Amino acid sequence: MGKNLTKRKDDYSKWYNELVVKANLAENSAVRGCMVIKPYGFAIWEKMQAELDRMFKETGHENAYFPLFVPKSLFEAEEKNAEGFAKECAVVTHYRLKNDEDNPGKLKVDPEAKLEEELVVRPTSEAIIWNTYKNWIQSYRDLPIKVNQWANVVRWEMRTRLFLRTAEFLWQEGHTAHATKEEALEETELMNNIYAEFAENFMAIPVIKGAKTESERFAGALETYCIEALMQDGKALQAGTSHFLGQNFAKAFDVKFATKEGGLEHVWATSWGVSTRLMGALIMVHSDDNGLVLPPNLAPTQVVIVPIYKGEEQLSEISEVANQLVDELKAVGVSVKYDDRDTQKPGWKFAQYELQGVPVRLALGPKDLEKGTVELARRDTLTKEFVKRDEVVGKVKALMTEIQDSLYEKARNFRNDHITEVDSFDEFKKVLKEKGGFISAHWDGTPETENKIKELTKATIRCVPFDREEEAGACVLTGKHSEGRVLFAKAY
Amino acid sequence: MGKNLTKRKDDYSKWYNELVVKANLAENSAVRGCMVIKPYGFAIWEKMQAELDRMFKETGHENAYFPLFVPKSLFEAEEKNAEGFAKECAVVTHYRLKNDEDNPGKLKVDPEAKLEEELVVRPTSEAIIWNTYKNWIQSYRDLPIKVNQWANVVRWEMRTRLFLRTAEFLWQEGHTAHATKEEALEETELMNNIYAEFAENFMAIPVIKGAKTESERFAGALETYCIEALMQDGKALQAGTSHFLGQNFAKAFDVKFATKEGGLEHVWATSWGVSTRLMGALIMVHSDDNGLVLPPNLAPTQVVIVPIYKGEEQLSEISEVANQLVDELKAVGVSVKYDDRDTQKPGWKFAQYELQGVPVRLALGPKDLEKGTVELARRDTLTKEFVKRDEVVGKVKALMTEIQDSLYEKARNFRNDHITEVDSFDEFKKVLKEKGGFISAHWDGTPETENKIKELTKATIRCVPFDREEEAGACVLTGKHSEGRVLFAKAY
Repeated sequence: MGKNLTKRKDDYSKWYNELVVKANLAENSAVRGCMVIKPYGFAIWEKMQAELDRMFKETGHENAYFPLFVPKSLFEAEEKNAEGFAKECAVVTHYRLKNDEDNPGKLKVDPEAKLEEELVVRPTSEAIIWNTYKNWIQSYRDLPIKVNQWANVVRWEMRTRLFLRTAEFLWQEGHTAHATKEEALEETELMNNIYAEFAENFMAIPVIKGAKTESERFAGALETYCIEALMQDGKALQAGTSHFLGQNFAKAFDVKFATKEGGLEHVWATSWGVSTRLMGALIMVHSDDNGLVLPPNLAPTQVVIVPIYKGEEQLSEISEVANQLVDELKAVGVSVKYDDRDTQKPGWKFAQYELQGVPVRLALGPKDLEKGTVELARRDTLTKEFVKRDEVVGKVKALMTEIQDSLYEKARNFRNDHITEVDSFDEFKKVLKEKGGFISAHWDGTPETENKIKELTKATIRCVPFDREEEAGACVLTGKHSEGRVLFAKAY
Repeated sequence: MGKNLTKRKDDYSKWYNELVVKANLAENSAVRGCMVIKPYGFAIWEKMQAELDRMFKETGHENAYFPLFVPKSLFEAEEKNAEGFAKECAVVTHYRLKNDEDNPGKLKVDPEAKLEEELVVRPTSEAIIWNTYKNWIQSYRDLPIKVNQWANVVRWEMRTRLFLRTAEFLWQEGHTAHATKEEALEETELMNNIYAEFAENFMAIPVIKGAKTESERFAGALETYCIEALMQDGKALQAGTSHFLGQNFAKAFDVKFATKEGGLEHVWATSWGVSTRLMGALIMVHSDDNGLVLPPNLAPTQVVIVPIYKGEEQLSEISEVANQLVDELKAVGVSVKYDDRDTQKPGWKFAQYELQGVPVRLALGPKDLEKGTVELARRDTLTKEFVKRDEVVGKVKALMTEIQDSLYEKARNFRNDHITEVDSFDEFKKVLKEKGGFISAHWDGTPETENKIKELTKATIRCVPFDREEEAGACVLTGKHSEGRVLFAKAY
C-alpha cells in the first residue's frame, strides 16, 4: 500500500493529497471545498482536542456554544472584521424548499420563505459573541470572561486542500473579555504559549513564536501573535493564532463595564484559535514516502500486534500471548490493538499500519513462541528487531517517549537547518528558490515593501519573532533602516 | 435568587424558561430560534457527551465528521426524508457579501456570487453520509460501518423554546451500515437500550422503551424505536430515537456490497440520535421552585464549599480546613469547588448554588471550626445537618450515590403514578385533563384514529411499549379490534 504513494521529492503536494486519502484521514465530499473527516483522522483530531481542552481548562477557561448564524447587521458591526470575511462567506437567504412543479420529485427554494435579514454562516464568532457579552457584562465583577467554543466555521475559499484549506473546518475559538489592556495582552500571550507548548509536546513540532505584521493580522485585531511551523518542503504553516482585539469589538457592540472606582469603560478583548489545519501540519512535518508517521502522544493506536499463523491451532497459541501483551501494555498506559482479523493477510496489515503511522508494530509467529521473542518494528525509523518476550512491555513503554522525542529532534534539526540569514535580495531569492525554509532578513517596516517582496517572490513575513535579537540593519529590498530581522517564507 | 422564580404550579412553562436563564444554562440569541448555551449549561452537556461517547465507543462505534451542507440534489434523493425536512430547512444560496452602495457601511448579498446549486444546512445527515458510504462500501469485508458524529443541525422550527425546540441544536447522530436486516435491527435496538441506560443511570430519568407508530416515525425510517420520559407537568418528552432505515438510503444512493457468497445486495441502515433536548428533560424532571436540581452523575460541580467569615484571619483559618476538604473529596472522586470569592456574600452564594442545582453545599464558619463540624445542605431535599469534620468525606461520598438513586426513585414513582389505564374515551379525556401523564389505552392501529384522537385531545401515541402485555381489546375511540394497549400523552 505505502509503496503506491507518490514520493515527496517527485511531487510533495501530490504525496500529501494521496497520503491523506490512503491513510484514511479525510476525503473530499460532494460539497465543494468541504471534507469528510474519516474515523481514523477524526480519532487523531479527538486526541488533539482532548489535550487542548485540558490545557484551556487548567488555565481557567470554560466551554460554551454560540449560534452558527450571524445576522447580517451584526456581521457588519465591526467594520474591519466584516470587510475581512465578507468576500468569502456562505449566506442563508431562505428557510424552506418546496416541490418544483416543473421537475417532479425535485425541490426548489420557496420564494415565499425569504428571510427578512440574511444570515451569514459564521466564518468566526467575534460578532455574535460580543453581541452576547454585552448582556453578560455590567461590572468589573463580571470580568474576566474566559470562554472557548469547539465549532465548525465556514469560509468560502476558492482553492481548497484537505485539512489545510477547506470551506468548512473544525476549530476552537476562545473569546475573552478583560478589565484592562494589560490583562488582555497577557491572555493573548498565554494562549499563544499554550499553542506552542501543545505543538511541541504533543505534535512534536517545533514552532517559532512571534507577532504578525499589520497586513497579516486577523481582521479587527490590534496584534496577532502566532506560532509558525516548517514543513518538509520548506514551506511554513501558521499553526495557531492569538489576537489582541483591543476595544474594537467592545466599541462596535457597546460593551462597557462599571469599574471598581465607579467609572464606565469599554472592555478589552482577545480571541484565539487552532483548527483542523493542525492535522495538515502534523502530517507534513513527520510523514515519509511510506505514509503517515505519528508521534505517540497523538496516535489513536500506539501499538498494533499482528499474528502470523497457519491454522486455528497456531492462532490460538499466538492469541494467548498476544492478549496477555495487550493487558500488560494497557496496564502501563499504552494504547494497543490486537488485529487478528482473518479477512486480511499479515503483509496487508503490515502495509496498512505503516501507511497509517502506528508508532510500533509487534508481530508474533510460531517461531517467536518457540524462542520466546517478539518482532518489534518501529514506524519512524523503519527498523526492526527481535525482543525477548519479558522485555517487550518495558521496551515499548520506553519507545513511546523515545519516538516522541526523536520526532521532535528530527523536526527541530530540519527547521534549524532551514533558517537562513540573508542580507541581500539576490541571496533572498536564491535561498528561497534553492533551499526554502525561513529567511531571516531585515525589513524596513512598511506594508509597501512587504507587499513588493510578496509580489516578487511569493514569500510573506511569517512573523516578527519574539526572541529576535536587537539588531538594526538595512532592509533587504529597499536598503532603508530596519529595527531587526523578521522571518520570511512561502507558506501554506 | 431562587425565590424569584415563578412557581411550577402557577405557570410551569414560565418556570422552565426562567430557570433556564437564571441558572445560567442558556439564553436566546440575536438569531431567531437559536440559543446560546452558557458555560454552566454547556458543562452539563459536556458531561452527557462524555458518558454517551464512552458508551458508543465501548460498543464499537467510531466518531467522524461530515459536511454541514447538503447539496439540494443529494437532499432530495431519499424522497420521504426530503419531504420530512424540506419545509423547515435553512438554505445557502450565495457565497459572498459586498458593499451596499445605497447604504454606506452596510453589506448586501452579491448577486454575482449565487451558487449553481443551493446548499441545505443539514437538518440530519443521512443524505450526505450515505452518499459518502457509497464509496466506502464494496464488499462484506467493509461492513459493518458504525460511525457517530457530534454536530450541530438546523431545523427551521417556528415555535422555539430553549433546549426543547431550537432552530439550531447540538446532537450526536449515529449512522451504521450492515450486511443483513437482522444485524441492522439488532443495532437499532442496542442503541435504543444504550439511550435508556444513559437516561436512567446518569440522568436519573426512568424511560419507557417502545416503537413509534407509522405517523410518528422518522422521515425515511421503517421503524423508529424511542425512549419516552415524563415531565413534572404530566407531559411526555421523547428523549432519544433509534431508526431502522431498511434499505431506503442504500437504494436512494445506490450502495451495494458483494456478499460472501458472491452476490450483490443493498446495504441495511440504522441511524440514532440524542440532542441538547436532553437538557430540557433533565431540567424538567428533577428541578423545583427553588431552581435546578442535578443528579450527581451529571453535575459539573458536585459539592461547593462556602466560607462564612469576618475578616482575613477567620478566612485564612477556614480556608485551611476547606482546602483540606477539597483535597480529600477530590481524592475520593468527588468534584468540588471552594468558593472564597470576596465579591459576594455567603447568602448570595447559597442562593446561587441552590438555583444552579449543586447537589451538596458545605458551609464552614468560625463556630464550625470550634466544634469540629461542617454544615451540610442537600439540594434535592433542601435539608441541612451538621456533620463531624472527620465524617464529612465519607458522608458526602455516600450522598453522591444516595442522591442519584433518590432522584431516580422519585421520578420513577411519579412516572408510575402517572400511567393510567383507561377503557373509554370519556375517561381518556378526563384523565388527560385532570391528571395528565401517560394514558394506556387500546387503539385500532389506524393512522386515522390516531389523528382523530390527536385532533380531539392533542394527545399523541408516544409509543407501542416493548414490554406491553398481549391483550386484545376494543379501541378507545372507535371500539374496533385492538391488538394491545399503546401509550398516549401530550408531549413536548
